[in-house]
Amino acid sequence: MNKQDLFELIKRKRSFLCVGLDTDITKIPQHLLQCDDPIFEFNKQMIDATESVTVAYKPNLAFYESRGTKGMQSFEKTIHYLKTFGNKLFTIADAKRGDIGNTSKLYAKAYLDLYDFDALTVAPYMGSDSVTPFLEYKNKWVVLLALTSNKGADDFQLLETGDINENKTIMRLFERVITKSSNWGTSENMMYVVGATQAEMLKEIRTLIPDHFLLIPGVGAQGGSLEKVAQYGMNNQCGLLVNASRSIIYASTGNDFIEKAKEEAISMQLQMEELLNEHDILR
Amino acid sequence: MNKQDLFELIKRKRSFLCVGLDTDITKIPQHLLQCDDPIFEFNKQMIDATESVTVAYKPNLAFYESRGTKGMQSFEKTIHYLKTFGNKLFTIADAKRGDIGNTSKLYAKAYLDLYDFDALTVAPYMGSDSVTPFLEYKNKWVVLLALTSNKGADDFQLLETGDINENKTIMRLFERVITKSSNWGTSENMMYVVGATQAEMLKEIRTLIPDHFLLIPGVGAQGGSLEKVAQYGMNNQCGLLVNASRSIIYASTGNDFIEKAKEEAISMQLQMEELLNEHDILR
Repeated sequence: MNKQDLFELIKRKRSFLCVGLDTDITKIPQHLLQCDDPIFEFNKQMIDATESVTVAYKPNLAFYESRGTKGMQSFEKTIHYLKTFGNKLFTIADAKRGDIGNTSKLYAKAYLDLYDFDALTVAPYMGSDSVTPFLEYKNKWVVLLALTSNKGADDFQLLETGDINENKTIMRLFERVITKSSNWGTSENMMYVVGATQAEMLKEIRTLIPDHFLLIPGVGAQGGSLEKVAQYGMNNQCGLLVNASRSIIYASTGNDFIEKAKEEAISMQLQMEELLNEHDILR
Repeated sequence: MNKQDLFELIKRKRSFLCVGLDTDITKIPQHLLQCDDPIFEFNKQMIDATESVTVAYKPNLAFYESRGTKGMQSFEKTIHYLKTFGNKLFTIADAKRGDIGNTSKLYAKAYLDLYDFDALTVAPYMGSDSVTPFLEYKNKWVVLLALTSNKGADDFQLLETGDINENKTIMRLFERVITKSSNWGTSENMMYVVGATQAEMLKEIRTLIPDHFLLIPGVGAQGGSLEKVAQYGMNNQCGLLVNASRSIIYASTGNDFIEKAKEEAISMQLQMEELLNEHDILR
């Protein structure tokens, strides 16, 4: 999916919601455990219940890999099901991969070709040749980790480097990652992960990359604020995909899990619609 | 496997060779393609041919993931086969994973529990809570990326930070990663990746972490020197696992692929034995 199509999708659904399919067998309703593939069954019902207000789905690989090949079969079925919606959904494999060039090529093949995701999250530590192989696929996206939502983000991402910003302040590592990597691709094939827990940094980040889409985790269970994210991060093509995982998919763990998930997703969509209107984006 | 057992293994085999099982269906001998699972068959024959001179095996996940669940079945069979050698082999999943704490826990479960690898490579960008969940498994290891062998290592790993070293020089990011992370575990459960192409840096790295094992890729196809690695990196428990992938497993792509791989592995083991003797480690 290209950038214009993604923007059209956001306008049509009046939403920039991404639902994280972090599906954990110990947290899904008991009655699903009788199904052949409880994880896929949960995902399918979750997608059906929320897709009308959701722009993107983002399964995190760890939840599937931790169940071995059985888990990877659930993963495969999930992406195949998502693809039946065609251009009505944007799909992100949350894999945080990255390796030497030859090897990153194979990860790119796996997620952008074989599984045919629209986008893949990638870790920047190994530099250019670990990222650029993912950029060779047309209308596909790298979502590069910049400033994550977890506590450990402080350890390295916020380190001061020897470089100076345009506004004469010292660049921190995440800023260096953004400025350096933004030359490897364009705002048509690269996005960045910026945690909602770091919303005040979005203002600064927008001076570096005004046009790129940002994938924002950390709203909901991790405590980030949707209003602040929109205030500092929204651009004239929205430029945001805000992810919620646990707060939606585990809104209830009882038999009403679908109903509650749908309520929660709709509640987020309504907030998002208001923010899109405030920023005059739904004209 | 604990550190003492690993050292005993190195002394017994007179080798610190790690063979990278980066098995690519397009590069293995034609006749294997008739097998039910060509990738596993190749790995099994490769392990049988080289295990007497090899301390560790390191399958890189990208090669298996790029073939979907079929590839993951080959991966599963490969680790199960490696485990039949018990404490005679050290096993490393080259996965370069790392995510927020809750999610890293699941990667740890996958590779250190379900697949029961001795060690897993981990990317440091997301900081402490992305790494520490892997350290909760007894006699298991995190192999953290520090200074990699690829060209992109220059982009961020060599960046100067605002911190100062004990010897009053400015710390670069990889040094900061090493000093910071070495407090999260010990030399009994953490190793670091340092590319052989950066051998001259090993001297400096040894002032920061004299006792840790280092996993060294980049000898062979990528051009690093074994002598230099030993000169600057070896400690009194060897402290090195030197990886070779392509130069061994694709030493020949004809019917003599096993014979040639074995020759290449033995040739490396003999060089390693000499270096271990020079450093007076095989007493």
